[in-house]
Amino acid sequence: MLDLTLFSTVMTLPVRGSHGLASIGHGLPPLLATTTGDLEGEAYAKALGLALTIIAIVIYLSAQLLGELSVRLGLPAVLGELIAGLVIGLSGLHVIVLGGDAEVAGWMTTIVQSFTGGSDRAIAEIFSGPVEVVLEDYAKIGVSILLFKIGLEADLKELIRVGPQAASVAIAGVTLPFVLGFLGLSMLFHLGTISAMFGAAALTATSIGITSRIMQDMGVLKTQEGQIILGAAVLDDILGIAVLAVAVGIAEHGSVDFGNLVSTVLSAVLFVGAAIAFNRFFGPAYMGFLEKLKNPYSVFVGAILFLAVTAGFTSIIGLESILGCFAAGIVLGDTVVTKALEEACEPLIALFSTVFFVTIGAKTDLTVLNFAEPESRAGLAIALFLTVLAILTKMAAGFFVFTQDKVDRLAIGAGMVPRGEVGLVFAGLGAATGALSASVNVAIILMVIGTTFVAPPLLRWAFSRQASVAG
Amino acid sequence: MLDLTLFSTVMTLPVRGSHGLASIGHGLPPLLATTTGDLEGEAYAKALGLALTIIAIVIYLSAQLLGELSVRLGLPAVLGELIAGLVIGLSGLHVIVLGGDAEVAGWMTTIVQSFTGGSDRAIAEIFSGPVEVVLEDYAKIGVSILLFKIGLEADLKELIRVGPQAASVAIAGVTLPFVLGFLGLSMLFHLGTISAMFGAAALTATSIGITSRIMQDMGVLKTQEGQIILGAAVLDDILGIAVLAVAVGIAEHGSVDFGNLVSTVLSAVLFVGAAIAFNRFFGPAYMGFLEKLKNPYSVFVGAILFLAVTAGFTSIIGLESILGCFAAGIVLGDTVVTKALEEACEPLIALFSTVFFVTIGAKTDLTVLNFAEPESRAGLAIALFLTVLAILTKMAAGFFVFTQDKVDRLAIGAGMVPRGEVGLVFAGLGAATGALSASVNVAIILMVIGTTFVAPPLLRWAFSRQASVAG
Repeated sequence: MLDLTLFSTVMTLPVRGSHGLASIGHGLPPLLATTTGDLEGEAYAKALGLALTIIAIVIYLSAQLLGELSVRLGLPAVLGELIAGLVIGLSGLHVIVLGGDAEVAGWMTTIVQSFTGGSDRAIAEIFSGPVEVVLEDYAKIGVSILLFKIGLEADLKELIRVGPQAASVAIAGVTLPFVLGFLGLSMLFHLGTISAMFGAAALTATSIGITSRIMQDMGVLKTQEGQIILGAAVLDDILGIAVLAVAVGIAEHGSVDFGNLVSTVLSAVLFVGAAIAFNRFFGPAYMGFLEKLKNPYSVFVGAILFLAVTAGFTSIIGLESILGCFAAGIVLGDTVVTKALEEACEPLIALFSTVFFVTIGAKTDLTVLNFAEPESRAGLAIALFLTVLAILTKMAAGFFVFTQDKVDRLAIGAGMVPRGEVGLVFAGLGAATGALSASVNVAIILMVIGTTFVAPPLLRWAFSRQASVAG
Repeated sequence: MLDLTLFSTVMTLPVRGSHGLASIGHGLPPLLATTTGDLEGEAYAKALGLALTIIAIVIYLSAQLLGELSVRLGLPAVLGELIAGLVIGLSGLHVIVLGGDAEVAGWMTTIVQSFTGGSDRAIAEIFSGPVEVVLEDYAKIGVSILLFKIGLEADLKELIRVGPQAASVAIAGVTLPFVLGFLGLSMLFHLGTISAMFGAAALTATSIGITSRIMQDMGVLKTQEGQIILGAAVLDDILGIAVLAVAVGIAEHGSVDFGNLVSTVLSAVLFVGAAIAFNRFFGPAYMGFLEKLKNPYSVFVGAILFLAVTAGFTSIIGLESILGCFAAGIVLGDTVVTKALEEACEPLIALFSTVFFVTIGAKTDLTVLNFAEPESRAGLAIALFLTVLAILTKMAAGFFVFTQDKVDRLAIGAGMVPRGEVGLVFAGLGAATGALSASVNVAIILMVIGTTFVAPPLLRWAFSRQASVAG
């Protein structure tokens, strides 16, 4: 689905006079002089390079600043990146305006012009054309590697150990918010079926990254509650991504076709089941083979090759390609080189998922939520509804733990509250497939921000309460 | 300069009917349905995703196979990647044909068509359009991070210790091949000034990566000869990249302007000098600051941010942006976190420099060197001339070691022979700026392949001879 947003700009660029020189000799790349407006050849190339550099600096600098602020406030860095996007994007300074809009901040135009010349229009077309293609591509790399790494980190053995407890929490934690969210959105807010389904689906998946980092910082990761939370978070990622695949499939076919629904759910479940089976035999064999190769890059490149094959296969059988990325991670998890592979993913995630989160923030227009307009007030009401429902349903899911042991069900529920990466992926895909209206999309992003803000203090409270009870 | 090849395709794409749907709500990305030929919307997006996946699989699979073969034959993996490009590109199977040519291998068209439909022409336009944009972008990331890492690895302290000896070898090793290469190409082969200058410049830079890996395998890295070779290789990288900046500058202005020559050389030397000075104070302070930040990604993202600023600055003052990448690496070298930074660059280099080397190979058309044609025989003669000159001049440079110690001058010369990454960068840039004819470009690539093939046995012979003399 991300492919939709990825290259369209390439194909819809205004081509207003290509001065491509003749190819220099057979088979060599032509001297690729091009024109946009009044910028030609060298000056065009220089303007483009400069525009990309400025955009990169703005994205990484704002992400660094707000990520750092977030971390220092005890919140996850990803929240800072999202807010960085809000600050520099449509909702704030309008430095990065994505989506075919040719709007460019005046100072950026001035900087580029001072070194290359060219009209405002020519510079604007560079920003809305090739620069945007590159940003969308980076965002796609970011989300693919992120889902791959979440798959790699899914500790299936541990999961099987705390299996029944985690499964009961996960199933309740996916079913409750999805069903209540769907009913609420369609009945209270009168959203269409597909729109309501996307909004509800975005409530399902807990953020493993946020939850595990908070628990690690608090030293409660190895408690029984900590293990159940992690197991349930992995499981509801799987369930959530399956729900996403179903929702996207339905959005594409335009209506809820029961046969289609069943076949999509079945193929998603079969696919993840196959990934778990492959994890037992194929994963270790493949990674062991790669490790025996002499080329030092073989393990990483071989893993990425497998990722590409799996993502391609998922797309061919009609599932979401990020489910393929996640499944590829599950297959290659738990081998002797998985740890090294996870570490190799880190720099890619640092660079490219930052672009993903910042651009999601930048595309979000908070100004659609304007109290003066009735429709907009509805959007705010939806945001509030989703946030409260997201918190309450996961807290409730904690009480569904299927165990005789005396566990702290409130702490488990609190651990499931933060929605992060996967929720944002839902918002991005919903917008790209056209299933979500602007205000529902914004409402989902506000829900992700809200639950992520609430989770760290909530978890600290739940676990410290438990400590004082136990003490 | 790489920017030239990077986005031109974006701007010269055939736009034959954009069916962009209306934007869904203010400020959200539009549902980006596009058309190429008879493929529309969903089918187009799927065809594009599939085309990218197939290309990625072909590139990484061939690079893995031939890289492994290379390493097992005692040759560097990069040589295998280059040959993988020759095999799948213009010289071989025509699977990847870059440079605006819409030729696509039949089986790839068939695979894509079987899942998405569409005419041969529509599929061909996807491969020659957005797929190529993405590949060129990956190649640019690859070469930027590669040069950044070479800069990071340049051990300036060690360099200062073996300074005079290494400097004398490096200066001789840059001057001899450049002067003799320039004279030979212009007088024997009657090439134009700029073409001869590029060809000669490509002879100057030793491959640090290849040389250091061979010496490490042989256990001679810590000998005095080993240290001099490494120091000289770092220095001739600096000199070589300065020569490159000069050559590109001259190619752009179309003629050899003496004032321009002096100012470009001066600014390149000043730039690298400034980088060395910044390494002392700014580098450790900046990295120390980043390390104090709480956000775990700060060190890496902060380093890449500095890389972007430096590359942008180089481009603004009219130097080659890869000189900026190299200089950024020098500035951030030798700090407490440099090792971690180098490791973080590895996965990016593994993924993206592979695309760089494979696409260089794929763009090379060995069939232009056809014995039946006189011009082509001249190309082969140039390749032979460059290869022999490349070996002899570096061997000769070994005898210029400025020292009273008894060192093995032949072994030092042998260590300088392999040209690798930087030589290929020269070939790529020369082709992109239009300064090189097809046959000279191919000749440079054959020279790189030749010296890289010759170097490992030559070095083994030189050092084993020394061992038996010493013994």
